[in-house]
Amino acid sequence: MEVGFIGLGVMGRAMAANLVRAGHRVTVYNRTREATGPLADLGAAVAQSPRQAAEGKDAVISIVTDDAAVSAVLFGEEGALLGARAGALVIDMSTVSPAIARQAAQQAAQRGLRFLDAPVTGGDVGAREGTLTIMVGGDEAAFSDAQPLFSVMGRRIVRVGGPGSGQTMKLAANLVSAMTLMVAAEGLQLGLRLGLPAEILGEVMPNSSAASYELAKLLDRHARQDWEPGFSVQNRLKDLRLAVEMAEQAGITLPMAPKALELYRQHAQEGAAPLDEASYLRRLLG
Amino acid sequence: MEVGFIGLGVMGRAMAANLVRAGHRVTVYNRTREATGPLADLGAAVAQSPRQAAEGKDAVISIVTDDAAVSAVLFGEEGALLGARAGALVIDMSTVSPAIARQAAQQAAQRGLRFLDAPVTGGDVGAREGTLTIMVGGDEAAFSDAQPLFSVMGRRIVRVGGPGSGQTMKLAANLVSAMTLMVAAEGLQLGLRLGLPAEILGEVMPNSSAASYELAKLLDRHARQDWEPGFSVQNRLKDLRLAVEMAEQAGITLPMAPKALELYRQHAQEGAAPLDEASYLRRLLG
Repeated sequence: MEVGFIGLGVMGRAMAANLVRAGHRVTVYNRTREATGPLADLGAAVAQSPRQAAEGKDAVISIVTDDAAVSAVLFGEEGALLGARAGALVIDMSTVSPAIARQAAQQAAQRGLRFLDAPVTGGDVGAREGTLTIMVGGDEAAFSDAQPLFSVMGRRIVRVGGPGSGQTMKLAANLVSAMTLMVAAEGLQLGLRLGLPAEILGEVMPNSSAASYELAKLLDRHARQDWEPGFSVQNRLKDLRLAVEMAEQAGITLPMAPKALELYRQHAQEGAAPLDEASYLRRLLG
Repeated sequence: MEVGFIGLGVMGRAMAANLVRAGHRVTVYNRTREATGPLADLGAAVAQSPRQAAEGKDAVISIVTDDAAVSAVLFGEEGALLGARAGALVIDMSTVSPAIARQAAQQAAQRGLRFLDAPVTGGDVGAREGTLTIMVGGDEAAFSDAQPLFSVMGRRIVRVGGPGSGQTMKLAANLVSAMTLMVAAEGLQLGLRLGLPAEILGEVMPNSSAASYELAKLLDRHARQDWEPGFSVQNRLKDLRLAVEMAEQAGITLPMAPKALELYRQHAQEGAAPLDEASYLRRLLG
């Protein structure tokens, strides 16, 4: 397919490269032009604006930082919605609020475009290896037409429901993983401070009902004292904030999440924003 | 070996049966005598008191409800410490405070006995199948001498450190699993209330960084609407309380656990005490 691709961060650059390698004709755009170099070397064209990246394409994909960035690359004068031809797919793979996803779906529909919100999980490794889980909100036919693209980037591709539901799923899952990390760190801290050897904790806990993806990650990071992202504290904080706001707007009580958000915000403010999310354990051991 | 076995609850009766089947000569004691019937049918002798169960044995094992019950079956006039012969192993497999484990180790040593605290994880299924994880505190030689017993009851048998350290490990691991369940329930609640289908949550979340043992359990219990224990709310609450107290006594701050304990106590007080721990999700969904 002819594809415009907007946003070449850690995730985007790997996903765009997989599309090029799979034979799609890809035109990339990134706010800072340096990032486009490796993609151009692979054979991608380079556009001067999101609007240009979208022009004449079958599909345009965006994966950017936050709601404001999605607004800028989709809705602005130089945004992709003005560039895309009627009937084109517009697929936002950023992790942002369900509200902006629904807004994008609406604006896209007004221009005769077909919008999907399609956030991903699986990290930079999954992006490189094309093994992401992709959670998709939007109509069935658009979902079906996007399969040739999704299947190159991900392994588990799930249509959740209507517009915004991909983001809702992503935020709910991220809320769970963020807090699972925090409670695992709390228990590891307790054991370590009471003198339990890290190796024994690492042998017992992942083989007990305490087992989780985040616990295993913490044990690995602690053993190597490696706090490079990975998944940064500032991105975790953004997702936690979005999940808590989403719940508040819907009038849903989250008993523990507000406290988790407060703790994680403190952690970010104390200089950890660019570190990996796992650095929360180091903070507790302080 | 000649073994006294005290406490035939869901866990104890299955563990004692495995010892009998493995060829150990087992004498059982239980506060209510009815529970001894099935073990007697298997070939176990039945004692009239913990003291009598311990008399002349190579080892005496206890697995009872709480600190008070451990005190009663070990330290009392009719307790096992008075019955056991010099050099015998005294192994408490209850989940109780590290403080009482250290007290038992001390009193046992004064009588020439060798004490191990050896709490288990793996639930009633692990107890029946002999696949428990056993966390052991106490000296190396006693640990080694107890292997013929542990190997019948468990698969992963780990010496954590000195007296009380088995209990410390157990409480730290249980703190993590209890809170992992609570945060997973919180995220599932959010998704379900926002209209995400349970099957889609069950497809995506366990394949994302939200994955945990407790999340999988919640999804299964919710799908079957099955809230029979399993692991009861009242036992969870006991373990949470012990972990928070252990941290307080050591002057260690747990940022989220006090809130978790408060929430779980409310859940128990609202009639859920005998239900499975997973009923916390049903509570959140109201």
